[in-house]
Amino acid sequence: MNSTDYDTHRENVAGRSDVEDTPELVAYYKELERLNTAALWTVANKIEPWQPKSVSVPVLWRYQGLREHVLRSVSLVTPEKAGRRVIYLDNPGRRDVSAAVGWLYSGLQVMHPGEIASAHAHSSSALRFIMEGKGAYTIVDGHKMALGANDFVLTPNGTWHEHGVEADGLPCIWQDGLDIPLVNALEAGFFTVHPDLHQAVTHPVDDSVALWSAAGLRPHDLGWNKPYSPLFKYQWEPTYEALRRYAAGREDSPFDGALMHYTNPVNGGHVMATIGASMQLLRPGFVGKAHRHTGSFLYQVAKGQGYSIIEGRRFDWQERDIFCVPSWAWHEHVNTSRTDDACLFCFNDLPVMEKLSLYREEALVDNGGHQPLIAA
Amino acid sequence: MNSTDYDTHRENVAGRSDVEDTPELVAYYKELERLNTAALWTVANKIEPWQPKSVSVPVLWRYQGLREHVLRSVSLVTPEKAGRRVIYLDNPGRRDVSAAVGWLYSGLQVMHPGEIASAHAHSSSALRFIMEGKGAYTIVDGHKMALGANDFVLTPNGTWHEHGVEADGLPCIWQDGLDIPLVNALEAGFFTVHPDLHQAVTHPVDDSVALWSAAGLRPHDLGWNKPYSPLFKYQWEPTYEALRRYAAGREDSPFDGALMHYTNPVNGGHVMATIGASMQLLRPGFVGKAHRHTGSFLYQVAKGQGYSIIEGRRFDWQERDIFCVPSWAWHEHVNTSRTDDACLFCFNDLPVMEKLSLYREEALVDNGGHQPLIAA
Amino acid sequence: MNSTDYDTHRENVAGRSDVEDTPELVAYYKELERLNTAALWTVANKIEPWQPKSVSVPVLWRYQGLREHVLRSVSLVTPEKAGRRVIYLDNPGRRDVSAAVGWLYSGLQVMHPGEIASAHAHSSSALRFIMEGKGAYTIVDGHKMALGANDFVLTPNGTWHEHGVEADGLPCIWQDGLDIPLVNALEAGFFTVHPDLHQAVTHPVDDSVALWSAAGLRPHDLGWNKPYSPLFKYQWEPTYEALRRYAAGREDSPFDGALMHYTNPVNGGHVMATIGASMQLLRPGFVGKAHRHTGSFLYQVAKGQGYSIIEGRRFDWQERDIFCVPSWAWHEHVNTSRTDDACLFCFNDLPVMEKLSLYREEALVDNGGHQPLIAA
Amino acid sequence: MNSTDYDTHRENVAGRSDVEDTPELVAYYKELERLNTAALWTVANKIEPWQPKSVSVPVLWRYQGLREHVLRSVSLVTPEKAGRRVIYLDNPGRRDVSAAVGWLYSGLQVMHPGEIASAHAHSSSALRFIMEGKGAYTIVDGHKMALGANDFVLTPNGTWHEHGVEADGLPCIWQDGLDIPLVNALEAGFFTVHPDLHQAVTHPVDDSVALWSAAGLRPHDLGWNKPYSPLFKYQWEPTYEALRRYAAGREDSPFDGALMHYTNPVNGGHVMATIGASMQLLRPGFVGKAHRHTGSFLYQVAKGQGYSIIEGRRFDWQERDIFCVPSWAWHEHVNTSRTDDACLFCFNDLPVMEKLSLYREEALVDNGGHQPLIAA
Repeated sequence: MNSTDYDTHRENVAGRSDVEDTPELVAYYKELERLNTAALWTVANKIEPWQPKSVSVPVLWRYQGLREHVLRSVSLVTPEKAGRRVIYLDNPGRRDVSAAVGWLYSGLQVMHPGEIASAHAHSSSALRFIMEGKGAYTIVDGHKMALGANDFVLTPNGTWHEHGVEADGLPCIWQDGLDIPLVNALEAGFFTVHPDLHQAVTHPVDDSVALWSAAGLRPHDLGWNKPYSPLFKYQWEPTYEALRRYAAGREDSPFDGALMHYTNPVNGGHVMATIGASMQLLRPGFVGKAHRHTGSFLYQVAKGQGYSIIEGRRFDWQERDIFCVPSWAWHEHVNTSRTDDACLFCFNDLPVMEKLSLYREEALVDNGGHQPLIAA
Repeated sequence: MNSTDYDTHRENVAGRSDVEDTPELVAYYKELERLNTAALWTVANKIEPWQPKSVSVPVLWRYQGLREHVLRSVSLVTPEKAGRRVIYLDNPGRRDVSAAVGWLYSGLQVMHPGEIASAHAHSSSALRFIMEGKGAYTIVDGHKMALGANDFVLTPNGTWHEHGVEADGLPCIWQDGLDIPLVNALEAGFFTVHPDLHQAVTHPVDDSVALWSAAGLRPHDLGWNKPYSPLFKYQWEPTYEALRRYAAGREDSPFDGALMHYTNPVNGGHVMATIGASMQLLRPGFVGKAHRHTGSFLYQVAKGQGYSIIEGRRFDWQERDIFCVPSWAWHEHVNTSRTDDACLFCFNDLPVMEKLSLYREEALVDNGGHQPLIAA
Repeated sequence: MNSTDYDTHRENVAGRSDVEDTPELVAYYKELERLNTAALWTVANKIEPWQPKSVSVPVLWRYQGLREHVLRSVSLVTPEKAGRRVIYLDNPGRRDVSAAVGWLYSGLQVMHPGEIASAHAHSSSALRFIMEGKGAYTIVDGHKMALGANDFVLTPNGTWHEHGVEADGLPCIWQDGLDIPLVNALEAGFFTVHPDLHQAVTHPVDDSVALWSAAGLRPHDLGWNKPYSPLFKYQWEPTYEALRRYAAGREDSPFDGALMHYTNPVNGGHVMATIGASMQLLRPGFVGKAHRHTGSFLYQVAKGQGYSIIEGRRFDWQERDIFCVPSWAWHEHVNTSRTDDACLFCFNDLPVMEKLSLYREEALVDNGGHQPLIAA
Repeated sequence: MNSTDYDTHRENVAGRSDVEDTPELVAYYKELERLNTAALWTVANKIEPWQPKSVSVPVLWRYQGLREHVLRSVSLVTPEKAGRRVIYLDNPGRRDVSAAVGWLYSGLQVMHPGEIASAHAHSSSALRFIMEGKGAYTIVDGHKMALGANDFVLTPNGTWHEHGVEADGLPCIWQDGLDIPLVNALEAGFFTVHPDLHQAVTHPVDDSVALWSAAGLRPHDLGWNKPYSPLFKYQWEPTYEALRRYAAGREDSPFDGALMHYTNPVNGGHVMATIGASMQLLRPGFVGKAHRHTGSFLYQVAKGQGYSIIEGRRFDWQERDIFCVPSWAWHEHVNTSRTDDACLFCFNDLPVMEKLSLYREEALVDNGGHQPLIAA
């Protein structure tokens, strides 16, 4: 802004600010600055927009292409030196905060058999979604979990956690998802390295699944009052089966086909305090309609192929591709296969939007509910 | 009470009532009666006991013996004439309110292939637990459920519901459980017969299972704000499997082995507003310790054999037997098999006890945690 | 019931039980009795009524008349001998459980200056409402409260509590309200006498009022997680003033004029786990319409005069009179003064009805919303 | 960052990233950039700090000095042209988002008698705190409130609201507080101008106070399920009185003297979904100890004089001065008067910190709990 351009946000609309710069006003503005103040009407229309316009850009990260770069990092750095060996998704509109979309961070982590990353804890909430390999595991507060493709695992706010790949495994790649940018923005980030660098496994492997993953059943003698789910691992097979049952039992959502949220079995709510996650199934040939809502969403294609139109641009995707839908961006999904269903994993900041009463959604009514494509 | 015996509850303990009848006092008491009043100290020690002493009697209803009587009712009355053809469990201490224990009603209902009971709704909460047969079904608000042995099904407060057996089925017997005595005691019972006597099936069969029985997953687009679970049927096989996983993943409770509560997936709480239910597994050779707690509990042996000691008396049980544990009664369970596990289904009024802040429990410390047997 | 009269509850209505006794059936019923069982259809219509019919009788206890009997008890028993010197309200339909209405107990307690009742705790929830005198006080868990006419005070479930009158006071009478019958019915009553018979006052007098009675303000550093209000005393003057403001700020309820519930400031809910309480103001000349609802209600006239019609019978009341409205009984209130408002204090079991999803209400539509009077 | 400086955040600590730039790595990093990705280890130590370091700067805005500039705006712009005539507090560390501290906006608004600002609604939550003048009012969804000095008023998320000064009033200044920066950051901001530019007053003036500001009492027949308090105005006099009672009834908090949170009477929680507010009283001579916590806090001196030490710097304050405490900044407050108490109004983002499980606090243990002053 030119130092004399204070009126760049004027709108000639009743109830909005519409004050033209004059020499007297500009002099006044400069006096205000010396007092660490400013005139609201010079920025009101900017800071009170009619509706959200996300600074995040719709992006699709193609796994093909990205994968080799991720694998190459193995020869370039060790987990010891790197802390964690991760290539993160850097949204062109969010480079300043290292976010994939909105206030959500995401990266692809690779580990070789026998490697172990050091244990730490942080006030960020974290999750991972397994993409490939064999023998991956995560330990959360002494609970070890064995992980396979499309498994979804939590390492919540405040827990000690560490990752590794068994010595007899195969190189593993998974997607990390965290609220690091949000926690930093809220100036509430704490980080601790485990005093022993590694934690002991103090419970049977996968015990959180054994104890907490029974539908409609709750352990009698295990209390739980933490702000996240006691079930840390959500396996792919039962999730996929549940989705198929759900899809068969009702009509599709016009926007999302059959979508289920991962939940905290203790209260039926979101899995963690700041991050929600879901898996959705698009039937063969599903052609979704467009809607938009507040909140930031990052998708990984767990199965199948198709495309999404986001803010008028088409993004073709196949298994393992990752793409984002920024807040209030129009989006619609299509499964291009006539024979196979497609599944989209997603994590998002819905818990934040809901708790702060900021969630809002809208369906596209024009054009049969479909966005016109923007010419490239 | 003799009309001059007002002092039968005296206790010579500081802080308790200890007033001897005198002619003057008795005259005074009689005056009070004319005003619809009385002196608290004549009943205080009675109505404020040191601890609960249930009027319900521990009873075991042996299925063998009872079963033939239940079956015989088929030839004696029709569902049309009887409303429902049920033999109910009539606790000797609760005959005035037709309760099996405390304020819980329970009965054994029998239906033959092709029979249908009429649809109704009531403010009582109801459940059933299937004991034998083939082709049983229940319809709740248009949702039809097919039922097999050890399946547990809800017909909650206010829902239209009806039962039947498919024409190609076999005679079916199930246990009904209701809070009728409680709702009557609270003077809140309403009853309505369905205007058409039968309701239409408006959803796919077992859709509540398809939509709501995925562990750690919640349908995105199905709201639910009723005071009971949207999952109406809890099937035996996954319940048993969950119990086995749970039993394997942790140490036994000294009192209950591995016990899981059936839950409302929407909020993790009890299945209905007034009635809770659970299934527990006692490993081969399990010898439980004694404890007692408030609340009334009615058990059905879903699998196996063993015995329970209740208030010092031993009750041997085998599959399909039913027994009750009254409030604040000492009880301990034993699986007498060395090779097979035993499973106890139970329904109870825990939601009432918990919501009203009246739940309390205590472990037996003497005698190694085991009750001395009372000589017969 | 005559031993051969099993068919006294027959109803010739589809969906209801309508089975006539036959010799064969009667023989069958007798066999069932030997097994601690019975046939549901012999009692179904009785235990599943179309709607509630309370066993409690509408009663008005006139303070004039009762007062002298209460005062006379002072010369007849000491608090030490009596435990508490209370004349309780004995509803003719509830003598078996010593209830004033439904499952609610109430009594009038009298103490002379210098008298102290011993301290105890019980699982019943209790309250008192001060009727007359000077110098009354209650101590709850070390918090002492000074009490005046129309003050409302809690002695919740599990707290140590004791009552007394200061040596320089005047004889005091107050109404006690408890859920003793309910807690007994639920077989969850525990009673303990304080080991020292009296407790120390460990906080400033009336500190719960100082700390917790600020509208729209909450102490920063006082936690509270008990199932009852931390505010133990609700004083008359601010309550009356609040009611007048409330009555001025909106239209009357056709049934209740201006009615406010006493609340737990921590969560806005009822004051205790099982008992709710309210104060309502009827403007000069207020003529209420009739409605009915589940739950049991006991009223004390805190101010003014008028009458209530309950189940078609008129009960004229003036200050300090007490009357009850049983569950599902039609009732309507009238303030007969043209110049003064009338205030009714009430305590009830609404928390129970609401938590157990048993609350239901209905307005009278016929006859302009007024009950026809039943000839005496 | 120089394009070859990727290793500026290295830390030589086990578990942290410590990777030195090499030509090969730099080449790799540049390839990653082309794929909209980057290596986590180049930024990990930056985005996962050991603890928060706020970008907001502690600032004190002196009312003396600021006041004349605020008043001068009256002659410079009309409310019609300006939308609202507000001078906002522009934290030197938060100029990019127009925040006073963290994600909280605040400004001083001035209106002359007879002026009215246009009505609008937005997804931001707003409050005001009256500083001076006579005749100020706010209308929220048809509820008009008359406002005096130190009154606190809500204009919550989604409500139509407008402000004005009565024609017979005096020029008024008040402090606005909003979460505009937060809502913008979360990309959830919507703004609507009222179709008529002004709303009708549809309720009695101050009815929310009449209906909802009775301590320990709740209107029977007014439901409320919105995510903010139905009580829109918190008046100064009862607040001050409540604080004095509270201060008298217990020991001071070592950090905050006697601090009370403004609450939503419906549930005892914070007044709005994203913004909390409090008033605290520091006794004459109060010398607080230092602590720090997450969350952003903006204070206005409602009464008295003293100083606060924030991050080692002393800020002297008197009535109407405003100052901020950024997240995790050490702070301690002192009342320098020996005779008069001091009161600090504060609004903050505590609801956000608490709901997202990000609240943490710490007391200073060294140096007797007092910060050493940093030399100027």
